[in-house]
Amino acid sequence: MKKVAVIMGSDSDLKLMQQAVDTLKQLEIPVEVHIYSAHRTPDAAASFAEHARENGFGAIIAGAGKAAHLAGALAARTTLPVIGVPIKSSTLDGLDALLSTVQMPSGMPVATVAIDGAKNAALLAAQMIAIEDSSLAARLNAAREQQTQEVLKKDRELQTTLD
Amino acid sequence: MKKVAVIMGSDSDLKLMQQAVDTLKQLEIPVEVHIYSAHRTPDAAASFAEHARENGFGAIIAGAGKAAHLAGALAARTTLPVIGVPIKSSTLDGLDALLSTVQMPSGMPVATVAIDGAKNAALLAAQMIAIEDSSLAARLNAAREQQTQEVLKKDRELQTTLD
Amino acid sequence: MKKVAVIMGSDSDLKLMQQAVDTLKQLEIPVEVHIYSAHRTPDAAASFAEHARENGFGAIIAGAGKAAHLAGALAARTTLPVIGVPIKSSTLDGLDALLSTVQMPSGMPVATVAIDGAKNAALLAAQMIAIEDSSLAARLNAAREQQTQEVLKKDRELQTTLD
Amino acid sequence: MKKVAVIMGSDSDLKLMQQAVDTLKQLEIPVEVHIYSAHRTPDAAASFAEHARENGFGAIIAGAGKAAHLAGALAARTTLPVIGVPIKSSTLDGLDALLSTVQMPSGMPVATVAIDGAKNAALLAAQMIAIEDSSLAARLNAAREQQTQEVLKKDRELQTTLD
Amino acid sequence: MKKVAVIMGSDSDLKLMQQAVDTLKQLEIPVEVHIYSAHRTPDAAASFAEHARENGFGAIIAGAGKAAHLAGALAARTTLPVIGVPIKSSTLDGLDALLSTVQMPSGMPVATVAIDGAKNAALLAAQMIAIEDSSLAARLNAAREQQTQEVLKKDRELQTTLD
Amino acid sequence: MKKVAVIMGSDSDLKLMQQAVDTLKQLEIPVEVHIYSAHRTPDAAASFAEHARENGFGAIIAGAGKAAHLAGALAARTTLPVIGVPIKSSTLDGLDALLSTVQMPSGMPVATVAIDGAKNAALLAAQMIAIEDSSLAARLNAAREQQTQEVLKKDRELQTTLD
Amino acid sequence: MKKVAVIMGSDSDLKLMQQAVDTLKQLEIPVEVHIYSAHRTPDAAASFAEHARENGFGAIIAGAGKAAHLAGALAARTTLPVIGVPIKSSTLDGLDALLSTVQMPSGMPVATVAIDGAKNAALLAAQMIAIEDSSLAARLNAAREQQTQEVLKKDRELQTTLD
Amino acid sequence: MKKVAVIMGSDSDLKLMQQAVDTLKQLEIPVEVHIYSAHRTPDAAASFAEHARENGFGAIIAGAGKAAHLAGALAARTTLPVIGVPIKSSTLDGLDALLSTVQMPSGMPVATVAIDGAKNAALLAAQMIAIEDSSLAARLNAAREQQTQEVLKKDRELQTTLD
Repeated sequence: MKKVAVIMGSDSDLKLMQQAVDTLKQLEIPVEVHIYSAHRTPDAAASFAEHARENGFGAIIAGAGKAAHLAGALAARTTLPVIGVPIKSSTLDGLDALLSTVQMPSGMPVATVAIDGAKNAALLAAQMIAIEDSSLAARLNAAREQQTQEVLKKDRELQTTLD
Repeated sequence: MKKVAVIMGSDSDLKLMQQAVDTLKQLEIPVEVHIYSAHRTPDAAASFAEHARENGFGAIIAGAGKAAHLAGALAARTTLPVIGVPIKSSTLDGLDALLSTVQMPSGMPVATVAIDGAKNAALLAAQMIAIEDSSLAARLNAAREQQTQEVLKKDRELQTTLD
Repeated sequence: MKKVAVIMGSDSDLKLMQQAVDTLKQLEIPVEVHIYSAHRTPDAAASFAEHARENGFGAIIAGAGKAAHLAGALAARTTLPVIGVPIKSSTLDGLDALLSTVQMPSGMPVATVAIDGAKNAALLAAQMIAIEDSSLAARLNAAREQQTQEVLKKDRELQTTLD
Repeated sequence: MKKVAVIMGSDSDLKLMQQAVDTLKQLEIPVEVHIYSAHRTPDAAASFAEHARENGFGAIIAGAGKAAHLAGALAARTTLPVIGVPIKSSTLDGLDALLSTVQMPSGMPVATVAIDGAKNAALLAAQMIAIEDSSLAARLNAAREQQTQEVLKKDRELQTTLD
Repeated sequence: MKKVAVIMGSDSDLKLMQQAVDTLKQLEIPVEVHIYSAHRTPDAAASFAEHARENGFGAIIAGAGKAAHLAGALAARTTLPVIGVPIKSSTLDGLDALLSTVQMPSGMPVATVAIDGAKNAALLAAQMIAIEDSSLAARLNAAREQQTQEVLKKDRELQTTLD
Repeated sequence: MKKVAVIMGSDSDLKLMQQAVDTLKQLEIPVEVHIYSAHRTPDAAASFAEHARENGFGAIIAGAGKAAHLAGALAARTTLPVIGVPIKSSTLDGLDALLSTVQMPSGMPVATVAIDGAKNAALLAAQMIAIEDSSLAARLNAAREQQTQEVLKKDRELQTTLD
Repeated sequence: MKKVAVIMGSDSDLKLMQQAVDTLKQLEIPVEVHIYSAHRTPDAAASFAEHARENGFGAIIAGAGKAAHLAGALAARTTLPVIGVPIKSSTLDGLDALLSTVQMPSGMPVATVAIDGAKNAALLAAQMIAIEDSSLAARLNAAREQQTQEVLKKDRELQTTLD
Repeated sequence: MKKVAVIMGSDSDLKLMQQAVDTLKQLEIPVEVHIYSAHRTPDAAASFAEHARENGFGAIIAGAGKAAHLAGALAARTTLPVIGVPIKSSTLDGLDALLSTVQMPSGMPVATVAIDGAKNAALLAAQMIAIEDSSLAARLNAAREQQTQEVLKKDRELQTTLD
């Protein structure tokens, strides 16, 4: 199975991005995690992206805050799908990271998820891998169904509480 | 090859979303186009998404403006990757559509591209299909390389102009 | 008397939405509460809305955060008035939920109240029911008058304090 | 049948608010239209709202731009439901009117629709009247069904065009 | 000397608005404080503003949060200058109150100060009174000069610390 | 009578600021107009403000766009009331000018009006002068009353049109 | 004298960035202009920045729109000062480019000017070069003085017009 | 070597701006620190800027919050490069300070860094001084290289942790 990479710009992002790693592992998707910064280690980031397809990756998740260039910088070096996670930092509530990640120029898409949406980034990567992997698609559908049942169960419990 | 669906909430979005259709066709990806509204035709939208995988689709592109619920509504009905195109309307410069598309709750990702980023949505869909299609990956790489060469050519021409 | 439904996308919204439930009960309006998510339980949400009028409901209150699609999704399935409560979440201070709730396309209104305005949603529902219920209108007027007197009393107390 | 009032702060808002008037008339709802400003004619606005219920109104629609206080000022004088239409003016793209209309304090709701959403305001008023008027509810359902059919027809036409 | 009124929409605003009261007292300006809400006590607010000039007031300060209509509502009832203090509440960081206060329509100005700028509102009121009161102008100039000296003193102390 | 100064940062602002000049003249208030920039002519701006009170001015109106420092720079040099007009420029719809004008630090107020609110700035200056000038107050009240009558007249005409 | 580079992400930015080129030439500063995209030609951009100091450059100006990564990408490859010009594009009025340019992470500054501030970017580059070039400093001072005189002249002309 | 000035509008900004001082000292750049306010001590601020070049300064860093005029006020009085640090205060998350600092009019640049970006301001000043100081440039390159190595080291440690 294709691997998914989880890249983040700083080790301070690890706590959030761990959610992506955990979600991928629960879905039995092989994952590799790296701290590469678009600005502090541009060569390492570029090199990783350039060789990602040949190294067996199917998608790349990139989380960064503020002027979040990481996802775009990786996308510039590969035609693998790159998923961007805008990370909220100490000012502007993540709006800066969101716009820096999503407003990519024509020809260079980044698949952007919600601010701090690390778990959803992992699910999105899994959905991409699952396009040609019916077993993974089945696991995703099962997780989705479980999620539905949990909400319905909470609604039933609520009815009991209210009576 | 898996098909890509291009769904839009209104026929007034067709001019923009045609860019996605054209890009997919240039990449030789089979495409199907529909006008389905999350609010005006919720059943048609839901039904399309629920059967999309079994009907041979690999990804769904959804474009909508204002309180743009379409991509999210489709994502709720399938585990295929759904790509959201926030469309600028007459007020708020597309910020409403962007936030309505990208800020999806945990468990239900939408791969969001830039406001009015229909072409990038198509490229992103192609990148997803290409994870397991080396021929399409090669076409994407070629298009990327051509794009690079065009910028370099414009830079060379600029040098001539300036001299 | 027509009932009012209070629907929320997640049980984490219950603390806020309880204000709506309490306000409705104080006004002696029958209320039903459900946890239905536009994305996690789309069928349950749609089914509830489709049968709400025949099941004796007069209005539906829907509270959700982030890309808050719930009110719109319910509105798409009924011509009962739907009242949307945008809920503040961990980022963007509720602006995402506000725009996702209020910026509905033509033909599909959602009556939106302030961010976290659960109590006002209940009052608005009561006002709708009271259009044809002069007894409830009288209770609303009395509550309004009491509210006025409380402010005037606080002003008088303030004068004493300041002297 | 209860009447609906359409109030606007300036005659420059008439072009937009006429959409509300037309929609109400199409639904056979009696309508009264007034130019009353929260700031220029506060007495006339207050007097209208205070007597609206006894004068046979079921709901009030108020459209205003910039620091749009009109809907709130009317809401302060009646317990009839007041629907606010934030109107886009020459700066800030309607965000000022939206926040001034929707962010009402606890105890004093305004049912806010989208920026420039005059038609939706009329539909919302109709939905409120229809809570106890099954004939109007039937007309609303029919209009909704027609709206659905129009989208489906456009989708079918699109299929023909694309072939 | 003309009096200055400090009006606020809720007793929860008293802690902030007390800064205005204290500043006015330090400048030996007679002050009256009231809790009047634009929405909960519209008559009391209107009546106060309508008689403010004849009752010896020279300026009115009004503090309110969210859809902050209070300053505008008072301004609609008097041609005395009305100073608006937008108050930050639990969402949107005061932007809603700022826009609701400052974006007044043509013909009806509100002199708006910074979000939570209660002290500056008092200084502004004092500056207005001082137009024709040279003694108060002298006190304002003295306070200004003291303020300047305090900054210069802090700079000198900083130099000592750094050496 | 005290004079009012209308200062603007660039001659490109003259078209808008002329509204302030005209309004002051209609109210028979002596007015002086200057182009002084906080950044291009800081000495001229500072000198004007420092001598404004002794030169017979009662208030200063300052209009500027973008990082609109003019009103604040004048306020730093006088204890006369300074009224700021944030002017919309080619980007950000005037939000930059609004925040740069209104968010003044403690101790240094600027009385801010709406974006492009030049006419309201003049009315506000007149209201300040009128605190101690009952004749001007009467003219302001008359203008206010005329404004009210115009709206009422338009409402009556509308009723005729609609019949 | 050290050269200044003017880099832009697309030839569509040339019209705006030409202002920077013209300003530098007027100040007799040698300038080189390139079209290099952070995403389409990442290698060319990186290579230019890495060799800029040894190639005789003193500062780099970079203009880009939307998710404007260009200035940051160049800054990551050199310790020369990089000046970023956020360029307004078809949506969001340049706010996306501003935040993507200015909100750089610690350790990697970009000297950001106003949205569309190409001329100011050139002046800022000149100011940097002039730190050790008293002749250029004199030219900058002369241009500044001329700018001051032009405003003062316009003010004098205005006085004539108004009399 | 040219000195760098670190100016702040209030001693409450010292904690943040100390980062700039420390960074400059680590780079062996002589630094002078002052508390000068654009509004409370305009003469001291102007005088400092006017004599900064002749007093041996090469660049000025100015940090301020809210309507942050300090950097612009200094820039108006010198042609030395002025670096602005927008400081987050209690409302609006620093957006007011950012726009007030960066949106400078044509002819008067301020080199703006991220909100609360005091350290980056120091690095930017150092980069400006280093244009003609190869020894400082070497120190900057070394610090940059160290920064890169630290990220790479953290990535290697992460790999160990994950195994």
